[in-house]
Amino acid sequence: MLLKKKSPHGGDVYSRPVRLDFSANINPAGTPEPVLCAVRNAAADCAAYPDPYCAALRAGIAEAEDVPADFILCGSGAAELIYSFAYALPQKKPSLVVSPTFSEYAQATAAAGGRVEFYRLRREDGFRLTEDFPKTDFSRYEAVFLCSPNNPTGLTVDAPLLEETARRTAEAGARLFCDLTFLDLTEEPGKYPIPALLGAYRNLLVLRAFTKSYAMAGLRLGYALSSDADFLETMSEKTPCWNVSSVAQRAGLAALGCRAWLADSVKRIAAERQRMAEAFSSLGLTVLPGEANFLLAYAEKDVPTLLAKHGIAVRDCSNFDGLKKGWFRAAVRTEAENDELIETLREVLL
Amino acid sequence: MLLKKKSPHGGDVYSRPVRLDFSANINPAGTPEPVLCAVRNAAADCAAYPDPYCAALRAGIAEAEDVPADFILCGSGAAELIYSFAYALPQKKPSLVVSPTFSEYAQATAAAGGRVEFYRLRREDGFRLTEDFPKTDFSRYEAVFLCSPNNPTGLTVDAPLLEETARRTAEAGARLFCDLTFLDLTEEPGKYPIPALLGAYRNLLVLRAFTKSYAMAGLRLGYALSSDADFLETMSEKTPCWNVSSVAQRAGLAALGCRAWLADSVKRIAAERQRMAEAFSSLGLTVLPGEANFLLAYAEKDVPTLLAKHGIAVRDCSNFDGLKKGWFRAAVRTEAENDELIETLREVLL
Repeated sequence: MLLKKKSPHGGDVYSRPVRLDFSANINPAGTPEPVLCAVRNAAADCAAYPDPYCAALRAGIAEAEDVPADFILCGSGAAELIYSFAYALPQKKPSLVVSPTFSEYAQATAAAGGRVEFYRLRREDGFRLTEDFPKTDFSRYEAVFLCSPNNPTGLTVDAPLLEETARRTAEAGARLFCDLTFLDLTEEPGKYPIPALLGAYRNLLVLRAFTKSYAMAGLRLGYALSSDADFLETMSEKTPCWNVSSVAQRAGLAALGCRAWLADSVKRIAAERQRMAEAFSSLGLTVLPGEANFLLAYAEKDVPTLLAKHGIAVRDCSNFDGLKKGWFRAAVRTEAENDELIETLREVLL
Repeated sequence: MLLKKKSPHGGDVYSRPVRLDFSANINPAGTPEPVLCAVRNAAADCAAYPDPYCAALRAGIAEAEDVPADFILCGSGAAELIYSFAYALPQKKPSLVVSPTFSEYAQATAAAGGRVEFYRLRREDGFRLTEDFPKTDFSRYEAVFLCSPNNPTGLTVDAPLLEETARRTAEAGARLFCDLTFLDLTEEPGKYPIPALLGAYRNLLVLRAFTKSYAMAGLRLGYALSSDADFLETMSEKTPCWNVSSVAQRAGLAALGCRAWLADSVKRIAAERQRMAEAFSSLGLTVLPGEANFLLAYAEKDVPTLLAKHGIAVRDCSNFDGLKKGWFRAAVRTEAENDELIETLREVLL
């Protein structure tokens, strides 16, 4: 069986029957029409090689993010940039991963021949990063991986704490990999002064994606931001030429024009998330106060297996470092779909 | 200036004005309609993550190549598979690159922290691989990179010589990376008994692409074939999850249904190639008897610069290891476009 070791994530609707997929964290509003249109139009020039420098897309992102184009490196999905970051590190010292979190940081580090240590968020702290964290001896590490909102908890890191971490890691000579791919799906997308942080801390790398916000996961497009252009150059050398397809580049440009659409969809996500959290609580589940388009919850019963029998997929989180059996992640979807999840949960739990 | 070190290839029509692009080796028949249709239809499900295992596409390739699906690893362009191959090697010993050839083998090896040595084809042999090659002490190398038809010469490796190389590298414990991405564009696509070779030599990895044959370079899709499933698994671990976009997977499946279209376009390419070669010769150029959809030629004058003034791009090959100034590569395009190239060459050379 080939590829058995690819780590299991949400969204695998190909190898099993799924009627309603709450396991992948995609904007439930679906792909905006201008992006769909860009994909259809991209067919016309798919014969040509893509622009290896993503010049037009980077110019658009530069404007949207208010940073110079030289601060931007595009990738074939945010996941590719996690790998090129890991490959660009010397991997002489371990990297520190704040966990539980997305498993690809550790996977990419292992692929690059490095190793990770985990800084475990505590359940008694509600899995929140606390002010103890920046006091870590970061000089022991090449890089620190931080995710905000964190996958799978949905919790964000306070802005002063993130800046303090950037400062302390910079002083210690460690890079800070800050995955903000879900930030645009919270009600506070401007939580961090990104251009100022990038300007102040050359060791900071911010990861962003189009995948989730604009529901274009099938197209593969993400980008990294850093004021260390040499390091971005090194990351770029770790990936092949033409790594970002022309379809993704066109779709990304179209998505940049859909920010009002995104803000509107985020309002509806927030209202639904609130409603789901209350329903989960009333069913006796423990729910974290996530801020993005998904919720992490805990039940004594095996919810993922019970829901699967009804054709509903949620993400079993028991294979996340630092989470035990019982934790599962559910995406926020449309009102009718969320109703069905809540109803089915009621059936299987009560 | 970001990304300055990305190696220059053909097909960069983004950073300079090009009216007629002979620098990229794409099937001049353009993208077949079923592939275009698949791209347009892929818009509908681009919200979902792609199948990380490419199960449907691999099943289709397995049938087309007459090998088990476990022998197949898909990549985001053939270029990505060159990198994952290099990352999957221990990189304790150098790799041997038969040159002049595609520069990404050396680039990928360098990205993976390895180094290459070059086995230089000689002009006095017409840049052909000879029977001396398999006598190389391959035990000094981790891997040997061979390209047939070779880019930029267009020359193929004789089938017995390729098999002998597979046998000798296997005995020496070296992997043989055999890039056949242009083979489908020659008149002898069945030149090598690929399933039998893969069965006999676990050290052999064959690289194939959809990019050039079906004019879908913008979509990024290639695949590797090997009977060493563990090694393919290791290569897969070196790339992120979901590396092949759902658009590419759908387009690839559609392309597999276009093999009669491909065979027909190859006939026209062969006739045009013959005509171009004769015209080049009559203009006093040295032309190699290439078998694919491009020709390597030599002129005393600086042809790439002279043609650029007329808005025509050819690939200046002076930065290929083993080729000096004066060598250039021109793709075979449509009859009218080739006429214009020949006419313009006549103008600038005579």
